[in-house]
Amino acid sequence: MSINRKLRIAIDMDEVMADTIAEFITLYESRHQTKISLGDMHGKEFREILPPHLSSTLKQYINEKGFFRHLPVMPGSQEVIKALHEKYDVYIASAAMEFKHSLEDKLDWLNEHFPFISWTNIIFCGHKILDADIMIDDRIKNFVTFKGRKLLYTSPHNLLINDFERVNNWDEVAIKLL
Amino acid sequence: MSINRKLRIAIDMDEVMADTIAEFITLYESRHQTKISLGDMHGKEFREILPPHLSSTLKQYINEKGFFRHLPVMPGSQEVIKALHEKYDVYIASAAMEFKHSLEDKLDWLNEHFPFISWTNIIFCGHKILDADIMIDDRIKNFVTFKGRKLLYTSPHNLLINDFERVNNWDEVAIKLL
Repeated sequence: MSINRKLRIAIDMDEVMADTIAEFITLYESRHQTKISLGDMHGKEFREILPPHLSSTLKQYINEKGFFRHLPVMPGSQEVIKALHEKYDVYIASAAMEFKHSLEDKLDWLNEHFPFISWTNIIFCGHKILDADIMIDDRIKNFVTFKGRKLLYTSPHNLLINDFERVNNWDEVAIKLL
Repeated sequence: MSINRKLRIAIDMDEVMADTIAEFITLYESRHQTKISLGDMHGKEFREILPPHLSSTLKQYINEKGFFRHLPVMPGSQEVIKALHEKYDVYIASAAMEFKHSLEDKLDWLNEHFPFISWTNIIFCGHKILDADIMIDDRIKNFVTFKGRKLLYTSPHNLLINDFERVNNWDEVAIKLL
């Protein structure tokens, strides 16, 4: 609208700001007395590396109240997003709507770890039909109808995808955008 | 993206799908043993017609868990939105993020009264930075950076605004869009 407005960035939460996979591994290893290797996940979803009879474990964890409240923060994300927030109009956009109990947990988590993000700039949705200039996400499905610049944030499941500009960590986001 | 895709409509919840004002009046009248006239609200916010020492009553109601779970459905909205859903890609977009306790209530309310709306098409946000073709909303602030067609859904507080295409009820939405 205004030609002087800051560029808008939409940033995904899971596997981008929050280390969801680290939490899966911690829970799985403690409940099943076994070890998981991140190397086994190269190009795969977490559920794909589990024994078939346990492949629904993940969905069970996600639906537990509290799961999203205690996720580890992705290294570097707080510092870089704080700096992005000074320069851009930063929005947090999470496909949280599938899991009803995640909504309050995700909001509390954001308020704890990213208190500088206003409620006005938080979006919980399903499909990300966003009008923004840049999107940082680990899921290419969120890029399909997005018209802006797409930055694929590296996660084990997307390692075999070569069609998008990639950022491997928050340092690389800083180099590209700050 | 695809030239054949359905047009996207983003529909607001409060005062558009849900009769939030009716609920305010019911609660206020029952708790303060007084009568409220909708006519007094012409061009005003609900809080503006209350005695000054009670003007924060509204915010108190909104923050009560359960408030958004039991709102009356706006007459005609279910039938018309069901028909829109056949013809368009319908999204529900509510600025729910300000009120943490509203999130689950709003989701449960939608699932009860609009069960045909998938979780993928529900958006809880603050600012509505949406990439859609049509927006139906009672708040013109949500139109500011929206690039599509804007339909102002009549609510007492917006009666003095003449700058937008207006729909007074769901029958008028049907006439315009179906």
